Amino acid sequence: MKVIRSVQNKQVKEWKKLSTKKGRKKQNAYLLDGWHLVKEALAARSEIKLLLVTEDFKYRAEFEEMNTQNSEEIIISEEVAKHLSETPSPQGIFGVIALKKEQSTPVSLQGGAWLMLDSVQDPGNIGTMVRTADAAGFTGVIFGVGTADVYQPKVVRAMQGSQFHIKLITASLSEWIQQMHKENMPVFGTELNPAAKPYDEVGKYRDFAIVMGNEGNGMSEEILSTTTTNLYIPIKGHAESLNVAVAAGILMFQLKR
Amino acid sequence: MKVIRSVQNKQVKEWKKLSTKKGRKKQNAYLLDGWHLVKEALAARSEIKLLLVTEDFKYRAEFEEMNTQNSEEIIISEEVAKHLSETPSPQGIFGVIALKKEQSTPVSLQGGAWLMLDSVQDPGNIGTMVRTADAAGFTGVIFGVGTADVYQPKVVRAMQGSQFHIKLITASLSEWIQQMHKENMPVFGTELNPAAKPYDEVGKYRDFAIVMGNEGNGMSEEILSTTTTNLYIPIKGHAESLNVAVAAGILMFQLKR
Repeated sequence: MKVIRSVQNKQVKEWKKLSTKKGRKKQNAYLLDGWHLVKEALAARSEIKLLLVTEDFKYRAEFEEMNTQNSEEIIISEEVAKHLSETPSPQGIFGVIALKKEQSTPVSLQGGAWLMLDSVQDPGNIGTMVRTADAAGFTGVIFGVGTADVYQPKVVRAMQGSQFHIKLITASLSEWIQQMHKENMPVFGTELNPAAKPYDEVGKYRDFAIVMGNEGNGMSEEILSTTTTNLYIPIKGHAESLNVAVAAGILMFQLKR
Repeated sequence: MKVIRSVQNKQVKEWKKLSTKKGRKKQNAYLLDGWHLVKEALAARSEIKLLLVTEDFKYRAEFEEMNTQNSEEIIISEEVAKHLSETPSPQGIFGVIALKKEQSTPVSLQGGAWLMLDSVQDPGNIGTMVRTADAAGFTGVIFGVGTADVYQPKVVRAMQGSQFHIKLITASLSEWIQQMHKENMPVFGTELNPAAKPYDEVGKYRDFAIVMGNEGNGMSEEILSTTTTNLYIPIKGHAESLNVAVAAGILMFQLKR
C-alpha cells in the first residue's frame, strides 16, 4: 500500500488545493475530513476516489470493520493529516469524493420540498441549513448565484453528511422559481418586514419552496418579486433579526407537512 | 484626549486579556468589538467603562451623532484595533463594558420564559441561542455549569447585543429547576429520543423553561430526570440530529405563547 509522509509530496499539494473552489473544479472532487463524514459517504455508496488514512486510524476496529474494498487507500503521516485538515486535531481519515454532475437547468421537479439560498454567505449557516433541510424531510437545496460554494470545507463540516441524503443544486433561482410556478408549487420568500405574511398563518405543504436571503441584506428584490407569498417571522423581543439558519429551521419545520 | 498607538502599551495588554475568562474576572469587564454592539450598549445605558476608537472611526457621522458624553474615550491606532479584534478587518470601535453582578442563587421568578443551557459548548451556538431567545420574547437564559462563558468574544459576537435586552444568569440548573417547580412552571427537557413527547403536541406557554443539552451528548441524565416533560423534534429525513441552536429556535418559537 502506498505511503506518503511528506507535506512536500506532489499529491498532498493537490489534495490541499481541494480547499479552493478552483482546485475542486480542476480535480472534479472535494475533501471529507473525519470518520463521521467518510462513513456517511461509504454508506451512501458515493464515489470515493481515495481514502487517506493514518497508520493509527487504519487499525481502529471501526475502520477495519467497514467495507472499504472498492476505494483505493493511501497511508498518510500524522503530519500530512494535520496539513490537510482545517481542524486542530484531525482524526486521521479523509475521503476524496467525486463531485456529482449537477442538474442546473430546470427540469420537471414532480413536487417535493425545496430550500433555496439567495446569496447566503456564511459557510457555517449554509451547511447548517442543508443539515436542517435533511432533518425536516426536504427534497433538496438549490444554491443560487452569489451563495457560497457547496463543497468548501466549512460548509462540508456543517452539513454533517447531509449532502449524501438530499439533492444539492447550484443554479439560477429565477429559472427554478419559474419552473415551480409552472408546476403550481407555492414559493415562499422571506422578509424582515412585518407587512409580509406571518409564517404560522399559511398552513402546511408537501410540495413547495422556501427562499432564504443574505445575512445582511436579505433576499434580492428581483427574487422577492417572483415568489408566491413572502413570509415574516414576528420578532417578539428586541433582537433586530434572527440568524438565517435558525430562521430557516423554524420555517422548514413549520411549513413542511 | 488620550491616544494609544503601540500594542506594547500596558493598557492595551490589559484589554487584550479581556478575551480570557481570567482577565474578564480580574477586571470585572468584557470587550465589545464593532459599532453595532457598542451602539446597543449605549442605547441600553449599559455601564461602558471606556470607548476605544480609531481616529478614522471617531469622525464618522454615525459616531459623532451618538451621545457618548458619559463614557471616557481613548483614541487607538489601527494597529491596536487589529491587535484587540478577533475579526480580520475591525471597524475601529470597541467598548469596555462592566460585567453585571449576577443573581445566581434562585429567587422568585414570577414567571417568564426561560432558556436553560446544560453544558452547551460551541460559542457560536450559545450566542445564537441568546439572540434567538431575545427574538422569541424570552425573559432570559440560564447558563448551567459546564456551559461556555457568556462573555467570551465569540459568544459576544453571536449574541448581537441581545445581552442588553434579556437576563443572562450563570448558575446551577438543578437549583433553578427546583425553584420553577415551586412556582408551578413547566420545565421542558430535550432529547434525541423518539420515546419523548413530540414538541408540537404540548401546546403554548407564557411561563415555562426549555433546557438544551450538549452538542455531542445532549442533556445530562441528572437534569433530564428533574424536568416536567422531555420533548423530541421528529427527524423526517436521514440527518442524525439538528444543530442545537436550530433546535432551540424551533422549540422556542413553537412553545412560546
